[in-house]
Amino acid sequence: MSASRQIENRVTMTNPISGTNVREILAQTVFAAVGAEAMEDLVRVARIEHFKLPTLLSAAGESPTHLRLVISGHVELVTRHISGSEIVVGHIAAGGWVTWLAVFMTQAPTHDFYISASSSCLALPVKDVQSFCVQYPEIYPMVIRMIGHRMRLLIEWTGQSVLATPVQRMAKLLSVLAQEQNRQTDQNGVTLYVTQARLASQARCSRQTANQLLQQLEQEGLIVPGYGQFTIPDWTRLNHFAEGHLE
Amino acid sequence: MSASRQIENRVTMTNPISGTNVREILAQTVFAAVGAEAMEDLVRVARIEHFKLPTLLSAAGESPTHLRLVISGHVELVTRHISGSEIVVGHIAAGGWVTWLAVFMTQAPTHDFYISASSSCLALPVKDVQSFCVQYPEIYPMVIRMIGHRMRLLIEWTGQSVLATPVQRMAKLLSVLAQEQNRQTDQNGVTLYVTQARLASQARCSRQTANQLLQQLEQEGLIVPGYGQFTIPDWTRLNHFAEGHLE
Repeated sequence: MSASRQIENRVTMTNPISGTNVREILAQTVFAAVGAEAMEDLVRVARIEHFKLPTLLSAAGESPTHLRLVISGHVELVTRHISGSEIVVGHIAAGGWVTWLAVFMTQAPTHDFYISASSSCLALPVKDVQSFCVQYPEIYPMVIRMIGHRMRLLIEWTGQSVLATPVQRMAKLLSVLAQEQNRQTDQNGVTLYVTQARLASQARCSRQTANQLLQQLEQEGLIVPGYGQFTIPDWTRLNHFAEGHLE
Repeated sequence: MSASRQIENRVTMTNPISGTNVREILAQTVFAAVGAEAMEDLVRVARIEHFKLPTLLSAAGESPTHLRLVISGHVELVTRHISGSEIVVGHIAAGGWVTWLAVFMTQAPTHDFYISASSSCLALPVKDVQSFCVQYPEIYPMVIRMIGHRMRLLIEWTGQSVLATPVQRMAKLLSVLAQEQNRQTDQNGVTLYVTQARLASQARCSRQTANQLLQQLEQEGLIVPGYGQFTIPDWTRLNHFAEGHLE
């Protein structure tokens, strides 16, 4: 698969300088902290990208040229396994950045970044973001906090026992994703927006297996499936099930 | 368990201002980038801590007051499970920081930080580290790179299938820990320094189970156990085994 061929799917439809939406979008991000005037430096280099088809944004082993904010659609982090199968190791929904980490790492990511069909992004050249941060270093701690939030979820996820069963692992995945989407849970439970297809890819199992595991969780009363979403009536109970005593 | 009681185990033995070793230790860290003169601001506030007994450095739900560099011994990140059992979710060996993330996060960590017996740390007050970074913002990208290296390992770890077997999970844990300790592998394999007790706690299983799983990996020729260490003759093969085709 050629990165350069796939990238041709991208159609840039908005002139970023005339588009006021770039300004509005950036104003809702971490960059707002520097004030509207300073932010103009980024507005000038920002561009809106539209993708009709699933597109490779950057390939494993190459450093991304742009920092992107997902406006619509989603981005998947895909690792190609030695056997040739593809593993989805991450999923970034609308509103998320792809990827702050890569802006500062000297080593290139070991996974591909694919964006879904009918999606759009706001793209900022990595070099401009780097020099912007040097000029406005108050951005850095905010970036560390964003990375840190995700990191803590990963730490929790990896804390599961090696003896956990597949259904416990699926429960943990739902519990982590729910934490990612909702900072707080209330008495009425949590609604998690995710498709079965995405759960299957993140759980690295077939859709059929994912379906079976989700049915088991439904029978336990831990989740209530809906269209493209799940309700978790009691997040603590779900997490307790995921972490259940094993030996 | 009371944090304030446990913290009494700490015995500060070195006067940081007179101790030249503080300077030498800091010179081998990220702080060296600012130059020897600027680093004196940190030398003045640094102190060396010695711990005779296992000690709680900071409890879940409270923000650490100090950033610590582990000089000898190790620190474990422990989450207390709802059932009362303790889960080790992280392990920081000598040479590692505890924890840069907490310096910048507004939310307190959800785990306890315990340091092992007969250990020592270099401790820097969080507030001083924060203001030092504001003064020398070139530190930030380096901090992000340190966090990012760990984050990528966690991303890889969570990429394992929900269907992976306990022995595959143990293989993945060894593979991730080997990547954490050694940036590169050579033709002669990798030596991983870790005890069975630590592997059991990170794998969240009994020592007996850990021993059985490690014996299986030994029989597959994937690891060669030693005293407090394992040799991995072929890291790619170990990782391949961990990621083996499952359905």
